[in-house]
Amino acid sequence: MTLRSRTFAILETSQKDDKATLVDDALLTGLILVNVVAVVLETVPGWAARYGTVFNAIEWVSGPAFTLEYGLRLWACQEDPRYARPVAGRLCCALRPLLLVDLLAILPFWLPMLIPLDLRILRALRLIRLLRLFKMARYVESLHTIGTVIRSRREELLITLSAIGILLLVASTLMFYAENAAQPEAFSSIPKAMWWGVTTLTTVGYGDLYPITPLGRFMGAIIAILGVGLFALPAGLLASGFSEALQNRRPSACCPHCGKELA
Amino acid sequence: MTLRSRTFAILETSQKDDKATLVDDALLTGLILVNVVAVVLETVPGWAARYGTVFNAIEWVSGPAFTLEYGLRLWACQEDPRYARPVAGRLCCALRPLLLVDLLAILPFWLPMLIPLDLRILRALRLIRLLRLFKMARYVESLHTIGTVIRSRREELLITLSAIGILLLVASTLMFYAENAAQPEAFSSIPKAMWWGVTTLTTVGYGDLYPITPLGRFMGAIIAILGVGLFALPAGLLASGFSEALQNRRPSACCPHCGKELA
Amino acid sequence: MTLRSRTFAILETSQKDDKATLVDDALLTGLILVNVVAVVLETVPGWAARYGTVFNAIEWVSGPAFTLEYGLRLWACQEDPRYARPVAGRLCCALRPLLLVDLLAILPFWLPMLIPLDLRILRALRLIRLLRLFKMARYVESLHTIGTVIRSRREELLITLSAIGILLLVASTLMFYAENAAQPEAFSSIPKAMWWGVTTLTTVGYGDLYPITPLGRFMGAIIAILGVGLFALPAGLLASGFSEALQNRRPSACCPHCGKELA
Amino acid sequence: MTLRSRTFAILETSQKDDKATLVDDALLTGLILVNVVAVVLETVPGWAARYGTVFNAIEWVSGPAFTLEYGLRLWACQEDPRYARPVAGRLCCALRPLLLVDLLAILPFWLPMLIPLDLRILRALRLIRLLRLFKMARYVESLHTIGTVIRSRREELLITLSAIGILLLVASTLMFYAENAAQPEAFSSIPKAMWWGVTTLTTVGYGDLYPITPLGRFMGAIIAILGVGLFALPAGLLASGFSEALQNRRPSACCPHCGKELA
Repeated sequence: MTLRSRTFAILETSQKDDKATLVDDALLTGLILVNVVAVVLETVPGWAARYGTVFNAIEWVSGPAFTLEYGLRLWACQEDPRYARPVAGRLCCALRPLLLVDLLAILPFWLPMLIPLDLRILRALRLIRLLRLFKMARYVESLHTIGTVIRSRREELLITLSAIGILLLVASTLMFYAENAAQPEAFSSIPKAMWWGVTTLTTVGYGDLYPITPLGRFMGAIIAILGVGLFALPAGLLASGFSEALQNRRPSACCPHCGKELA
Repeated sequence: MTLRSRTFAILETSQKDDKATLVDDALLTGLILVNVVAVVLETVPGWAARYGTVFNAIEWVSGPAFTLEYGLRLWACQEDPRYARPVAGRLCCALRPLLLVDLLAILPFWLPMLIPLDLRILRALRLIRLLRLFKMARYVESLHTIGTVIRSRREELLITLSAIGILLLVASTLMFYAENAAQPEAFSSIPKAMWWGVTTLTTVGYGDLYPITPLGRFMGAIIAILGVGLFALPAGLLASGFSEALQNRRPSACCPHCGKELA
Repeated sequence: MTLRSRTFAILETSQKDDKATLVDDALLTGLILVNVVAVVLETVPGWAARYGTVFNAIEWVSGPAFTLEYGLRLWACQEDPRYARPVAGRLCCALRPLLLVDLLAILPFWLPMLIPLDLRILRALRLIRLLRLFKMARYVESLHTIGTVIRSRREELLITLSAIGILLLVASTLMFYAENAAQPEAFSSIPKAMWWGVTTLTTVGYGDLYPITPLGRFMGAIIAILGVGLFALPAGLLASGFSEALQNRRPSACCPHCGKELA
Repeated sequence: MTLRSRTFAILETSQKDDKATLVDDALLTGLILVNVVAVVLETVPGWAARYGTVFNAIEWVSGPAFTLEYGLRLWACQEDPRYARPVAGRLCCALRPLLLVDLLAILPFWLPMLIPLDLRILRALRLIRLLRLFKMARYVESLHTIGTVIRSRREELLITLSAIGILLLVASTLMFYAENAAQPEAFSSIPKAMWWGVTTLTTVGYGDLYPITPLGRFMGAIIAILGVGLFALPAGLLASGFSEALQNRRPSACCPHCGKELA
């Protein structure tokens, strides 16, 4: 086994009985989590200055580490029969979504050293560091599951979402015409009334916009009672798809007659 | 095949392998969407003036286009065996809900040219343009599905809605008597307390009305914990009916014994 | 058939093919609804004075009508084998819940004529008139269904409600200790923190009470994400019991193997 | 039967036909509930002073009673074959979670008598008295059920909770960048934007934080419509697990072919 095939095995596969793979997965997952927490906490006013050395240290460890990981992945990808050709294969490999995420994740470290950038772009670059979170996609099973579920209910979700859109539009238009005269600031336009519609029909109800006229309240009550059910449909579809997906994964011992699991 | 039967095929049927039908569907759907977006955005303060030429252009394209579509539908409907008689058939056809929507959708374009109208009615006419959205009913499958679901659960929905009405009335009356003395403005009458009831039991909770007395809060807590379940019933019924309706449409390969889908 | 047995048939049974029963049901249902609407609207400030004659007229029709109905029910109940004895049977009959509701429903009409009452008690009596709503229990099927469902899930509901109570208590105590120092007014005691708990865990969220300290917000986030599921359990139990109850009523043609309904 | 084995039977087992066990369970459950209510009500401003004698009386009864219960449990535990050895067995027994809770529950009574404590620690000790609630764990079945359900859906809950965490992080970061400029106070950092995320995606919606820019509202609407379904998944999983757990406990007479319960 060559060094390259070993590197490929460690980085790209996840065999439970290979210790090096497990250590590598744990290290990278840990580093990603530390990075995400750092990016989040850095935005707390005052913390960037107070804990600047900690945040810098994390960046000076993570930048080279992720760069090394990216390089190794690119070097080892030739082991994959699909990317066997030395140059064209590596280019193909580098254009895969996860590798692009890896590249974007290291840019905020290298770019300011290569090109002089103004402060605005620097701040935006720090945002890009949060893309490191998506490097987790390799390790977190839930993202695959959610993706599978959404695909399996694609059609149903599209139908409910279009119905939601139509209900939202009709409800907001009615509310706009009912409340515009009484609250010209709050219900100033249909798009703003749609904000009311979303906060009401998802039952969030911030309380920044609500009807105050008797007609508006009457319509709002009817819309809320009837419409809340429609907005809950995507949630229900996701839930049933999710439990179906998880059911399929379990080793099931089903009664051949009734399809129920045997104890 | 005559020109009229071809027109009928293009407008009224939706065969996947007929290119003209597809182009016609796409054009009309697009025009409807552009119209809806225009009506919505026109209400944003200042935009009617600033982008007036754009909105006018859309109207001057859509008005004649929808009128042409309406005329062609009326002319071609004789192909349908139910409306075969030249005059009576066309009249019957014109009274179908979707054709009436088509007629209402072009009125805001033609009416101001035919009769002098004051500003208030003109504004209301602009609202009617939103009815063009319902022309989508021909193309959006979700509206048919939702309608089917509501019909299939008609009885259950009526039962739950009447129970919801009774709970709402009882809860609001109790709250009115508990809070009226402490908040004579907020809980001024039972109808206003019912507005509290709807916002609470749908869990929207804007925060414009809430109990402040210990008794009112105690009752509000009990009502919320017990009543939220009742108000969620229509949503649950719709969800189960919806998933049943979608299940039926799929070509299913079921195990003949357990009724479960085979992989 | 005697007059009494005919009266009994009209009032107490609901045969679809008996016209007198249908007319009687419709009349009484209508009168009850008119009464309920009147009681509700009378509380709107100013309406009691402005539409006083209408409200009085409704009362002067409803009072005698409901009294007549009560008297007829009491007179005819002897037809029921269980209440056959002239005096003791009628007394037993009069103590049934629905007959007690009927009695309470006519008290607000007769009591002020018999005894001089002060204004406070008079106002409370008007509240009692809303009990006329429960006379509907005879006609509205949904109330029976809801009652059946609650009984069928009694045990599960008790278990979830006790778990909800414990979670509410623990969450509110933690929040009280986290927020009391920062908001001594808002989170002044554990009972008040429990009001926060109810509005949060039912996802109503009025916005009158919410944590503002970082610790309180962190705990509030965890409590909300985990606890919302627990508070949704009674709703889910009711929904499943409800759909089960309705399924049982339908004439079902099930596949004998899989238990699925045949088309 | 020795006195010790009788004590063991009364305290640790719950046989329905043993009167002493039932009386003991009722007394202890009652005392625990009285204690919990007392701890809760004591926090209401002014009540600690006004009803001080009542609260003290409850404490002077509960402290010794729970101490006696603890002592008896420790003395009788030797009857359990697992803890048969006189000293080591009792020590093992004392380290069981429920016995530790019992010990913690009596500490607030004895500690102030043994050691001089300052006021802050005394106040914290009063909090610990609420742990007496968890003594209920012996008697309340629902806590066992909830525990079983959470264990049975452990894997699914972890997957959904990690997906919820990722969605929350991404949504909050986007909202922070959209709203920070317009509301530097409200959306001052990503952690604070995460508080917005939790209150929105659980649909609580207090109204202390909400987007006000058009971009923020547009993103907030999309996030709310799509994300609410994801946050409802743990609730759905708990509900299905719960109904499964309760189904299993019932003595079921199932059709051997379809698995449906027979009437």
